[in-house]
Amino acid sequence: MELKPTKTLSGFIELLPLQQRCFDECSARMQKALKTAGFAHLDLPAIERAEVLTDKDNWDEIETQMFLFQKGDTKMGLRYDGTVGLARYVAGNLNNLTFPFRAYQFARNYRGERPQRGRYREFYQMDLDILGIETLSENYDAEIVATLTDVYKSVEDFVGPVSVRIGNRRFWNAMFAYLNLTDTQQRNAFVLIDKKDKIKDFYDGLVQEVGEKAAVEINKVFSNGYESFRGVDGALDSAIEELNNFMTLLTSMGVKNAKIDLAIMRGHSYYTGIVFEFFLDNFPELSAVGGGGRYENLTSKFSKTKIIGVGAAIGFSRMMVALLEENKIDLSKFERPIRAAVLVMGQEQVPFAMSVLADLRNAEISAVPYLDVDRKFKNQVEFADKINADFSVIIGENERNTKILTVKNMQTGQQQNINLSETIKLLKTV
Amino acid sequence: MELKPTKTLSGFIELLPLQQRCFDECSARMQKALKTAGFAHLDLPAIERAEVLTDKDNWDEIETQMFLFQKGDTKMGLRYDGTVGLARYVAGNLNNLTFPFRAYQFARNYRGERPQRGRYREFYQMDLDILGIETLSENYDAEIVATLTDVYKSVEDFVGPVSVRIGNRRFWNAMFAYLNLTDTQQRNAFVLIDKKDKIKDFYDGLVQEVGEKAAVEINKVFSNGYESFRGVDGALDSAIEELNNFMTLLTSMGVKNAKIDLAIMRGHSYYTGIVFEFFLDNFPELSAVGGGGRYENLTSKFSKTKIIGVGAAIGFSRMMVALLEENKIDLSKFERPIRAAVLVMGQEQVPFAMSVLADLRNAEISAVPYLDVDRKFKNQVEFADKINADFSVIIGENERNTKILTVKNMQTGQQQNINLSETIKLLKTV
Repeated sequence: MELKPTKTLSGFIELLPLQQRCFDECSARMQKALKTAGFAHLDLPAIERAEVLTDKDNWDEIETQMFLFQKGDTKMGLRYDGTVGLARYVAGNLNNLTFPFRAYQFARNYRGERPQRGRYREFYQMDLDILGIETLSENYDAEIVATLTDVYKSVEDFVGPVSVRIGNRRFWNAMFAYLNLTDTQQRNAFVLIDKKDKIKDFYDGLVQEVGEKAAVEINKVFSNGYESFRGVDGALDSAIEELNNFMTLLTSMGVKNAKIDLAIMRGHSYYTGIVFEFFLDNFPELSAVGGGGRYENLTSKFSKTKIIGVGAAIGFSRMMVALLEENKIDLSKFERPIRAAVLVMGQEQVPFAMSVLADLRNAEISAVPYLDVDRKFKNQVEFADKINADFSVIIGENERNTKILTVKNMQTGQQQNINLSETIKLLKTV
Repeated sequence: MELKPTKTLSGFIELLPLQQRCFDECSARMQKALKTAGFAHLDLPAIERAEVLTDKDNWDEIETQMFLFQKGDTKMGLRYDGTVGLARYVAGNLNNLTFPFRAYQFARNYRGERPQRGRYREFYQMDLDILGIETLSENYDAEIVATLTDVYKSVEDFVGPVSVRIGNRRFWNAMFAYLNLTDTQQRNAFVLIDKKDKIKDFYDGLVQEVGEKAAVEINKVFSNGYESFRGVDGALDSAIEELNNFMTLLTSMGVKNAKIDLAIMRGHSYYTGIVFEFFLDNFPELSAVGGGGRYENLTSKFSKTKIIGVGAAIGFSRMMVALLEENKIDLSKFERPIRAAVLVMGQEQVPFAMSVLADLRNAEISAVPYLDVDRKFKNQVEFADKINADFSVIIGENERNTKILTVKNMQTGQQQNINLSETIKLLKTV
């Protein structure tokens, strides 16, 4: 019989236990920070109706980007981000939730496209949103950026420090209006600014799209700073004030490493105000590891009630797997998950050894027994070594008779003969 | 424009935040118990190659039971249990893992069939396995049952106490051989015993399948007990001894509420020794909420190395959602997730209020601000009430100037004027 393949499909992730422990610890810490900020956890289905995932008119294009399938008469597919499900859930639970409603998701999303380096077909993303009915103060925009900073800070010892860059769609809308750009010019300028840091001939491109006069002004935003436009136009003044207020609030919340960078646009068209992106200072090659912004009318496809929000997404798998694959994370903290290996010399000792095992676990000491008890002592110690247990608790006939255990520190080699409660005390000591 | 549906597809689960907190707490506690028992977390892809999920010859039948789809030339599908992925992973990582290898999964699985009451198309299952190469002592069978008991006990305050019933495939093999049953008779007797507690005419059915003489003997196992077969046959004696040793080890590990029930068979054909099922004492209507047993050659389709194991699965979503839907779980512990609502009277107070917010969160106090600061005080207090905050921290002009905060206990209505560090101290006190 031919053996089946043991590798995952390309674009899918699975980790060894050591790396998985780091992945889980980071996810747990980040979720804890979100809970401290009062975000409720939502765990929405991975499968949605196709009509929820997409509008039917661009079905064919979407089909190549998503995982779609049919059961009976129902077309359905795997979700590709957290937003669609959130919109459906919130619209369906308007009367069950308190607004402003704050929620996070930590969930797998799916992309059907052929995977590229650093892009996966299945990946965890952390989505967080604050949603208001009809209205939501812009103060929340600063709060969500400060919260995200806390979230990243919770894993700083693994991924290093983070910076955030702040853009503002409203500033550009005011600027483009002030410059009398046509709709087409506005769109093209928007795209160019979004790509500014990736292209060489930004200025020349601008001139071509909007003419020299407007290009000079737009370029001034980056060379002289946005403050240089103060006083020239009411709408611009108001956008500048919004940016400055935003920075003041960030400072109030203790956020350092934030700066305004009006080249931050966040491709998606649905943002309407502040937009932001997070970067790992030590790993600029990853580019943005998270970002978001303010949007309007989240639930328009599901409800007549208007929901305004500010939200963000963290590309958790992308960040973690990139760093883990390149051995950029110090994993030493995760190398010794087992406190005690319980080694057992002969079947007669098993009942006593298992009572010791149970007592260790009841004291919340992680303990793994070696129960193939006919194996040589040498093999058993080898097992304790391989699983990186801090201690071996060795149980032979003598230990069973006297109830005095042999406890070996696997790093120093030092051995002690102590009773169970002394053993528990020793193993509970860090 | 027609609005899209907000309900999930039938057979899919989504919870409100209150119920989700209970779901998450139970999952976290159960996973913690598994980690204390040294089980490594594996987080395997939800999508596998179709050839991994199924053998191609029964493709059509499987297709109706699973979610299958094709991308390019590759047929793939959503996993329906944890075993297939585990087998693939272990076979592919024989040299990266230490054996006996112990691992758990807490993951969504998918069934494509039309959903019935209490059966879902997407559900969380907890799988745990201990795996040995070529050999694995039966002592581990008792250890895994004791571990599972600890896992359920970790959520006893929500789901109540648990009992476990132990069967043994080897006992029946010995019995059927002793009774000289044909292969067909053995299979039919097996199916009947598996259904014993659900059918009325067990004995009559037995007589029909295996004849009166054998039926009398088989029935004696249930009426007189398995011990009554001691001494009649060597293989039976050895199976009886295995059962008794098993119970001795369970007792050593402090497991109460375990009893031998040889009607426990666990439908799946791959079990070869001990089998077991867990039941919630307070909710017998749920029938088994978990179970497992010993099996041989987990990885035969992926590797020539023989992997023997003992494993179990907990139907986590099935258990939790059934109890949550019927309001059988006391959720009071989850009703007050927010310690402090920070209420802000006017925009001038926002920077100071947000610095207070940050300080509370830095002290690990869960805190939610109300930042639509132009709303009336009454509306703000209403918000604090609705989110069930334990305290409101109220910040007006006076508080900003004096740095003395107004802190209101939302349950007693009592109000205090205290500084930030006193506030933190108060809110940290349980």
